[in-house]
Amino acid sequence: MSQSFTPIASLGEFGLIDRMKERLADIPRSENLIEGIGDDAAVYRAGDGKLHVVTTDVLIEGVHFDRTFIPTSFLGWKSIAVNVSDVVAMNAKPLYATVSAGLPRNFSVEMMDGLYDGVAEACKAYGMELVGGDTSTAHALYLSITVIGEVDEKDVVFRRGANVGDFLCLSGDVGGAYAGLKVLLDQREQLENLGESYEPDLEAFQYVIQRQLRPNARLDVIQALKEAGVRPTSMIDVSDGVASEVHHIGRRSGVGATVRIPAVPFDPETRAVADQFLDDIDAYALFGGEDYELLFTVREEDVPKIDEMEGVSVIGNIEVETKGVRAYSPDTGLMPLHPAGYQHFDAPPQPDPGAFGDDEGPSFEDTDFSGDGA
Amino acid sequence: MSQSFTPIASLGEFGLIDRMKERLADIPRSENLIEGIGDDAAVYRAGDGKLHVVTTDVLIEGVHFDRTFIPTSFLGWKSIAVNVSDVVAMNAKPLYATVSAGLPRNFSVEMMDGLYDGVAEACKAYGMELVGGDTSTAHALYLSITVIGEVDEKDVVFRRGANVGDFLCLSGDVGGAYAGLKVLLDQREQLENLGESYEPDLEAFQYVIQRQLRPNARLDVIQALKEAGVRPTSMIDVSDGVASEVHHIGRRSGVGATVRIPAVPFDPETRAVADQFLDDIDAYALFGGEDYELLFTVREEDVPKIDEMEGVSVIGNIEVETKGVRAYSPDTGLMPLHPAGYQHFDAPPQPDPGAFGDDEGPSFEDTDFSGDGA
Repeated sequence: MSQSFTPIASLGEFGLIDRMKERLADIPRSENLIEGIGDDAAVYRAGDGKLHVVTTDVLIEGVHFDRTFIPTSFLGWKSIAVNVSDVVAMNAKPLYATVSAGLPRNFSVEMMDGLYDGVAEACKAYGMELVGGDTSTAHALYLSITVIGEVDEKDVVFRRGANVGDFLCLSGDVGGAYAGLKVLLDQREQLENLGESYEPDLEAFQYVIQRQLRPNARLDVIQALKEAGVRPTSMIDVSDGVASEVHHIGRRSGVGATVRIPAVPFDPETRAVADQFLDDIDAYALFGGEDYELLFTVREEDVPKIDEMEGVSVIGNIEVETKGVRAYSPDTGLMPLHPAGYQHFDAPPQPDPGAFGDDEGPSFEDTDFSGDGA
Repeated sequence: MSQSFTPIASLGEFGLIDRMKERLADIPRSENLIEGIGDDAAVYRAGDGKLHVVTTDVLIEGVHFDRTFIPTSFLGWKSIAVNVSDVVAMNAKPLYATVSAGLPRNFSVEMMDGLYDGVAEACKAYGMELVGGDTSTAHALYLSITVIGEVDEKDVVFRRGANVGDFLCLSGDVGGAYAGLKVLLDQREQLENLGESYEPDLEAFQYVIQRQLRPNARLDVIQALKEAGVRPTSMIDVSDGVASEVHHIGRRSGVGATVRIPAVPFDPETRAVADQFLDDIDAYALFGGEDYELLFTVREEDVPKIDEMEGVSVIGNIEVETKGVRAYSPDTGLMPLHPAGYQHFDAPPQPDPGAFGDDEGPSFEDTDFSGDGA
């Protein structure tokens, strides 16, 4: 082993991924593997014209969640939903999940019941099965989930398929999960200042808190697109914020994009939270993470079908790569849109309006290298 | 959430699994799922007459390994090998792996290089690809691996296929990984007593230390069995000790078994360690875990083919369930053989000769519920 000690944080997110890829470069590639590291999920041929996709995510107490905020049943649900979200981003249907858990000594049977009730509820909601797992003691609560899904070879959608002239679409509304986190962090701070033990108040700001604690994977959206006869040209799930995901599509597809800020939808409750904290609602909508909506591109001729769909918005268009990723609003005109990565719980997220002109990339906190390859 | 707090340890391993299964019971079952929770890996139909198998294992610093013992390159190798071992126990060939890592702040780029070098080396050795993963900060080093494999539908082997009259076979030798752990723990204790910082001495007792730190999955054995024209009737990998694995086959197949103790092979170095610590070598061989050999049953007519194979031993035979799991040696005659679960690092393992007549089951420390269903 080398005698040097170089901190991992010094590599940055893309440096870390590049370094990993270097170490892994000489593993021979199988002809059945269609997509390895570099999309929301890996894709390989299963047989009978079907592709399988596989994705994995880890949720760690103190990094990805705070156990004082989230009932274990919500956490069980969320751990499945965030992986299903990666599967549906490939236009695939989830089939099987494995759930591994590291349980700290202060985790009770009742908490475990809640956790697996949440897992079971999500499996039922998304029409999938829990087929395995592994449980150990651990220093803190760790959840590691893998989900396998299926898609017809002709229907698979990657990040890399966007073409100049396509339109950029978004399901649902965004910024809510970030607003929910902001409310929860504020409640905790207020209670800590009072010296009282914390009890989450899930009644106030119900919608945004639910967006944060119990997000929904948009399996319904890919089904609706199929029924409408629309196959997206590229797709990604919004885990790190719209701005960051547009950059992923741009980089993987070799295109630029313009996001029309007034077209990016947010819920009135999200706006109320931003107003209360004197924050910029556009920063919530563009840089807030964990909404698990779908960002995708469609051909121009499919736009009328999108316009007829409930809960899907056209938020921009795809341009040549040299134009880069930009945002437009009537107030500011066209300006560069930087990814402004979302930071997880242990470094409380601060969507920074300065990120419009800032070069700061995502941090090391959460590097999903199945999802972030160059 | 309930107001009660029941410690998880109070459930015991099988209680924990039963409780999880209860929470998950009403998830509808798909017709393509052949085996869910309850074997070394889950098994489902992929298409074109192929089955896919999936298994997952978590390795947590301080629970499954001690970072002062194991170079990160060995840890990377081992994390893949232990999952491949579960795949080959289904008579399947590994194809794809995902590796998720939680990295503590004291983990360097050089350590990460070692980790991924070990992962890459194992992927190449077992002919598989790394297709995804997820990296986060964490409190301690946490590795979560999932491996997907493939097997022709006609070739798959479960734990549940052993029949009365079959013979019990074992690849390689056992007890070595436990002997290696014993040596490493002893070295650490001696150095701690001297007040010096610990530097592992990997030269002394090389074989047993390697068995502990860099185990090999027996993909070669299932290939050799195929070439010899032998399809095992049941199979399991030896992660928790031979005695425990015979019990798993017995319970899942509804049979009893007798293990002939003098037929269970161990390496001379394993014996040397047992002698040095004044331990019973039979306890090492029967109850020591983490050898990752294959324990399997074959029909009587296949025994001559097994006898011709290098490095595979016939160690016993399958009997009616009412006879239970027994061990025979000329010294002691026939006696009940209890599983005497293997305990992981944080509760240093003590194969207990008393376990021959003891009812103690495996602890909560590591409950692989893809592998331990009733």
